[in-house]
Amino acid sequence: YPGTFAAPPQQPVNDPMWGYFTAIAGQDGEIDAEELQQCLTQSGISGTYAPFSLETCRIMIAMLDRDMTGKLGFTEFKELFAALNGWKQNFMMFDQDRSGTVEPHEMSQSINAMGYRISPQALNAVIKRYSKGGRIYFDDYVACAVKLRALTDNFRRRDQMQQGSVSFQYDDFIQCTMSI
Amino acid sequence: YPGTFAAPPQQPVNDPMWGYFTAIAGQDGEIDAEELQQCLTQSGISGTYAPFSLETCRIMIAMLDRDMTGKLGFTEFKELFAALNGWKQNFMMFDQDRSGTVEPHEMSQSINAMGYRISPQALNAVIKRYSKGGRIYFDDYVACAVKLRALTDNFRRRDQMQQGSVSFQYDDFIQCTMSI
Ligand SMILES: [Ca+2]
Ligand SMILES: [Ca+2]
Ligand SMILES: [Ca+2]
Repeated sequence: YPGTFAAPPQQPVNDPMWGYFTAIAGQDGEIDAEELQQCLTQSGISGTYAPFSLETCRIMIAMLDRDMTGKLGFTEFKELFAALNGWKQNFMMFDQDRSGTVEPHEMSQSINAMGYRISPQALNAVIKRYSKGGRIYFDDYVACAVKLRALTDNFRRRDQMQQGSVSFQYDDFIQCTMSI
Repeated sequence: YPGTFAAPPQQPVNDPMWGYFTAIAGQDGEIDAEELQQCLTQSGISGTYAPFSLETCRIMIAMLDRDMTGKLGFTEFKELFAALNGWKQNFMMFDQDRSGTVEPHEMSQSINAMGYRISPQALNAVIKRYSKGGRIYFDDYVACAVKLRALTDNFRRRDQMQQGSVSFQYDDFIQCTMSI
């Protein structure tokens, strides 16, 4: 398509993901958290790591579900899948011994590698929250990455002058933090 | 203790909770999320409802763990236990058929009953996030109550003029929302 900048609309039928998405989504063409968990497990994206917990699947949906139905369509699912592949590569890079966990100091590096600039104190709070027995498992790593992305997006959308500071009304604060 | 306003320091030895707290806490006198889950299960506080998930126990610790060790001492454990009893009573009041779940419209009433004033839109986002198959289970109900309390506390602490609006720096915003 020379001279065309927009990608041509994708034919979902030719997409390898389309098969198990539709099989699971059923008639409404959307998937909820339980169905997302099945989809992701069947896709094998967790590789040798444990499949995603239902809780993490709910956070994933909250991140992408812009129309607030609690479900994802195929486009949102594909967007999620692309993000997950990025996080998986990032995780594997830091989990060099393939133990299935990254250690706290590696987690700091990894959050930096994702492009977030946060203070040692904030990093410490995040790491504490997502560790089990001093280590971070893939499922929690992804939950952490999803939340960081969603909260940062929510913040940026309100920080239109890019001043690094946002004035929140209580109701808006609760809505944008409780839904994640 | 007439004329004395402060309660006398409690003798933990005479406290019925002290027994299983120390049995589980071991030498360091503090409990982490896994140990909290054991403690709460043994205490029977969930009654006929399913025991608390590890995820909910982690949120509980994040709410109370002011020194950021990822663990709770006995005082904090007692404070948590008191809050849990309140939420359980609240939940049972709305789960009148003892199905173990409350329905979305009852959840709205219940959040109002806890003293929070939030818009229908924010309520809707919260309910969507904590429902499974259109119902809210006790474990998720408590996770929701813990988060609402912690986020509201964090907000209030910064809203010293009580104007209902807080200006957050990005780092502070991430720290206070990611740790819950
Ligand atoms: Ca949707
Ligand atoms: Ca490792
Ligand atoms: Ca019920």
